[in-house]
Amino acid sequence: MKSQIVTFLIKCPDNKGLVAKITSFFFNHGFNIVSCQQYVNSIEDVYFMRIRLDATDAKISKKELEEKFLGLAEPLEFTWSVNYGNKKSNVAIMVSHTSHCLYDLLERNQEGNLDCNIKMIISNHEKLRPIAEMFHIPYYYLPVKKGEKQKQEAQVIELLNQEKIDLIVMARYMQILSEDFINKYPERIINIHHSFLPAFQGANPYKRAYDRGVKLIGATAHYATVDLDEGPIIEQDIERVTHDSTPTTLKHIGADIERLVLAKAVKCHLNNQIIVANNRAVVFPETGE
Amino acid sequence: MKSQIVTFLIKCPDNKGLVAKITSFFFNHGFNIVSCQQYVNSIEDVYFMRIRLDATDAKISKKELEEKFLGLAEPLEFTWSVNYGNKKSNVAIMVSHTSHCLYDLLERNQEGNLDCNIKMIISNHEKLRPIAEMFHIPYYYLPVKKGEKQKQEAQVIELLNQEKIDLIVMARYMQILSEDFINKYPERIINIHHSFLPAFQGANPYKRAYDRGVKLIGATAHYATVDLDEGPIIEQDIERVTHDSTPTTLKHIGADIERLVLAKAVKCHLNNQIIVANNRAVVFPETGE
Amino acid sequence: MKSQIVTFLIKCPDNKGLVAKITSFFFNHGFNIVSCQQYVNSIEDVYFMRIRLDATDAKISKKELEEKFLGLAEPLEFTWSVNYGNKKSNVAIMVSHTSHCLYDLLERNQEGNLDCNIKMIISNHEKLRPIAEMFHIPYYYLPVKKGEKQKQEAQVIELLNQEKIDLIVMARYMQILSEDFINKYPERIINIHHSFLPAFQGANPYKRAYDRGVKLIGATAHYATVDLDEGPIIEQDIERVTHDSTPTTLKHIGADIERLVLAKAVKCHLNNQIIVANNRAVVFPETGE
Amino acid sequence: MKSQIVTFLIKCPDNKGLVAKITSFFFNHGFNIVSCQQYVNSIEDVYFMRIRLDATDAKISKKELEEKFLGLAEPLEFTWSVNYGNKKSNVAIMVSHTSHCLYDLLERNQEGNLDCNIKMIISNHEKLRPIAEMFHIPYYYLPVKKGEKQKQEAQVIELLNQEKIDLIVMARYMQILSEDFINKYPERIINIHHSFLPAFQGANPYKRAYDRGVKLIGATAHYATVDLDEGPIIEQDIERVTHDSTPTTLKHIGADIERLVLAKAVKCHLNNQIIVANNRAVVFPETGE
Repeated sequence: MKSQIVTFLIKCPDNKGLVAKITSFFFNHGFNIVSCQQYVNSIEDVYFMRIRLDATDAKISKKELEEKFLGLAEPLEFTWSVNYGNKKSNVAIMVSHTSHCLYDLLERNQEGNLDCNIKMIISNHEKLRPIAEMFHIPYYYLPVKKGEKQKQEAQVIELLNQEKIDLIVMARYMQILSEDFINKYPERIINIHHSFLPAFQGANPYKRAYDRGVKLIGATAHYATVDLDEGPIIEQDIERVTHDSTPTTLKHIGADIERLVLAKAVKCHLNNQIIVANNRAVVFPETGE
Repeated sequence: MKSQIVTFLIKCPDNKGLVAKITSFFFNHGFNIVSCQQYVNSIEDVYFMRIRLDATDAKISKKELEEKFLGLAEPLEFTWSVNYGNKKSNVAIMVSHTSHCLYDLLERNQEGNLDCNIKMIISNHEKLRPIAEMFHIPYYYLPVKKGEKQKQEAQVIELLNQEKIDLIVMARYMQILSEDFINKYPERIINIHHSFLPAFQGANPYKRAYDRGVKLIGATAHYATVDLDEGPIIEQDIERVTHDSTPTTLKHIGADIERLVLAKAVKCHLNNQIIVANNRAVVFPETGE
Repeated sequence: MKSQIVTFLIKCPDNKGLVAKITSFFFNHGFNIVSCQQYVNSIEDVYFMRIRLDATDAKISKKELEEKFLGLAEPLEFTWSVNYGNKKSNVAIMVSHTSHCLYDLLERNQEGNLDCNIKMIISNHEKLRPIAEMFHIPYYYLPVKKGEKQKQEAQVIELLNQEKIDLIVMARYMQILSEDFINKYPERIINIHHSFLPAFQGANPYKRAYDRGVKLIGATAHYATVDLDEGPIIEQDIERVTHDSTPTTLKHIGADIERLVLAKAVKCHLNNQIIVANNRAVVFPETGE
Repeated sequence: MKSQIVTFLIKCPDNKGLVAKITSFFFNHGFNIVSCQQYVNSIEDVYFMRIRLDATDAKISKKELEEKFLGLAEPLEFTWSVNYGNKKSNVAIMVSHTSHCLYDLLERNQEGNLDCNIKMIISNHEKLRPIAEMFHIPYYYLPVKKGEKQKQEAQVIELLNQEKIDLIVMARYMQILSEDFINKYPERIINIHHSFLPAFQGANPYKRAYDRGVKLIGATAHYATVDLDEGPIIEQDIERVTHDSTPTTLKHIGADIERLVLAKAVKCHLNNQIIVANNRAVVFPETGE
């Protein structure tokens, strides 16, 4: 293999000797272990590992590596994935008419901080096309006409297939996706919800935050699942507010939280830091390699 | 009047000239305005003021002041209260078997940072009596026997009456108070709930926070109302957690948030910083006089 | 006067009756007081007020208003300014080769959240011209050649004069401005420093933060004064970091803090929320009008 | 060995295969690895590991374990320590006249959250003796008379020796310890400084924070070294403040930060989460075992 960083994500029943067995496996095949993060869920007896390997001195092909790894993975009942770090992820962003999250993602990627190919922006409105043009990203206007949601989703799916999209980011896309759509992309759709979930699930969270008189507002990035706003939480943050805030000022304050929370979640996903289990996201911290 | 700080809290329909009228009234009666904080709820057209007056040079008795103030207050439809700063509030703390909030309040008061008389601790368990004894505060053990909740509450009320209690702090008191009890003490019972409301209302918030996989946990101090956990929020805060937290570690992390949030809320109340309207608490910041 | 919001900022020696006198003055001339924020520095006996007025019903011209206000302001020794809310501020952004703060300001303004005219971007490098072009803002490349700093600053000043610039934002401009330049624009130059001042004044704060092993990094927006990094602080914020951070990851984490802190400071300035006294910035919170 | 958790802390030059070698060593001797945390400082090429082992099934004595471990440790140049989890640490708290940190530590330990033996409180003032008595901890009043600092420190050292003190916590002890004293207890003295270091090193940080007009104040817990306030930082935190804060209100706000930061640092130390290298503290997060 060429000089590159290979990342394995592993989930399995907890067992004695796992870290020794896994790290020895890679060491014995010539990999240098750049970082090895693990987590044991001792309530559910599940073991999680994220291991990053420098393949420079590994004298083994990908095919051989994966075959041999199966010899370890099968008896220990691993659920696993591997990323060879040699290919940027393809990303599609879905939006409606709110621009702050879109700007933020495009700008971060342009500055080289997201490390992905943003292949397209899909919207049910024309409004944000000028932003797509500023950043030279194709913009697809696919409105959802009454009774034609299925048809529109079919068009979306076709676009996603054409560009081999790895990750869909719902950057304030104000349409509910169908179960069929969501089930096609398990742990591959990230949504930003404008409240600190599970508070204020559903519509109008800032208005409801005002009505309830909360002293903090927040935002939550999570994987989309068929239960709306109930998918695994990747990242959350909050900001202090006071009685003086109106739904409008809450919306402005909240916009900055949404941007940061969504960007962090997308970065964790692209950087292979996340393993989902039992509707909870294990998010390993970035290592300062 | 003697040298003292007098605080008026005023709530009324918004109107032109309110600040000029109110501040002129006090100025013309010889008060020096130490601080004047206002807030206009422009959605509901309600005006709020907290005004603190130095009475050193005021040549007017309390009785005269209040009579004359009525001449201003009635036509402008004020809801108002006044505190003459000459008497510490009497406080009762209610607990069950969790000690961190109790310790914290007792210690702050002993250090001179709460500025109240903690007259009694009431509990449905014997467990925390030693802490009361450390701080030389009377401890009343009033268990809630099956079918005798009303009787126990009557005993509590009698104690509160005897000591002329101004504020009841539920510092993790794990009993639901009856509507009758709560209605006797409007905006005079502060409760600490161990979640960032409205998330995880009700029982076992840390367990549910673990189950939901949130990345922040919080605590909320609010006035008790008959709708459980739905009273006006005075203060909230959160702390970051990770996938690695268990319900037990969440409980430990949360304990520190609970302590701080409850202490801040109690301090705001004792310092006359709060006006409630429409189930929301207007909390004026402390001024650095 | 037309329907508009007029903002007065007032600073004067503390005195009895100030709030009554000032608010009565405006009330008597037909203004509705939208918000009135005050602060008394009781250590230095200085009074500060920010008062916002709805001029819809005021039957008085600007000229008359200012003449009459002088009758109040002079005997009470006011330092004051007034903004009639009828003209957006003209802003110049100065940058070198770091783009995140520039992007952020341009994007916020484009979204309508800064409410100013960004008239120009001035840089000592060509590098960020493409961003200026994306947002259709004139970009002036004015390199600082050895021994020609004075000449370059003269060119900058000429541009600022031409466009009647009200506020200069140093969005990571990596040149030290001369005393002459800075003294021309008192409280009109906002700089972002990439540390929580007064820690890590001067160069390379992220490298020094790594070396010192701090557990938080921060950013500080302040008015530029001739003492480098010692001007009045407008806004600061921090983010937690760990031992695992390198100078490079600190720089990435810090970039988001810098963006937010600078944007908040610029917004407070444009919104007339700041009064400076004794090298400290009194920053009144935004009111939710 | 009996059923217990054994913690090894290891620091060594970075090398291929470290994690595999170390984990295999423990696995092969019958230990179950409860958690294994590592960090590679890639700038200085240093490897750090904290590994926690369940010794229930290990058929090896402590002596054998340590002898065999040396066979691994020496060729790889480990700096290491081991804690067998079978003995609470002995702690001495040093104070002057500020009580909030003292209360906090005593209360946490009484609640079972620090897991140590607080053997004594040493003070250069009599003032806080009543608190010691509340918690039934011996209190030693050892004033520092002019010219007799060396003598007083000798008395302190004798007390520390008598009780086999493992950790000295300076909970606002306002005396500078001599170099001799500090060098006797490397990485065994934790100090709380009432600012976010390196800002406001030295005396009167709250007064200086007021003078500088900062918008955040903080506190820092660090190991004491001969360079005052320059030891390895274990934990820091901050709180927002405004222009309205005075040195006195800053002190009150700061007190809560100091308490939490000191308690967290002490807990990390007692829980064997810290490895110091090059004046920086590697602090591994607590694992939710």
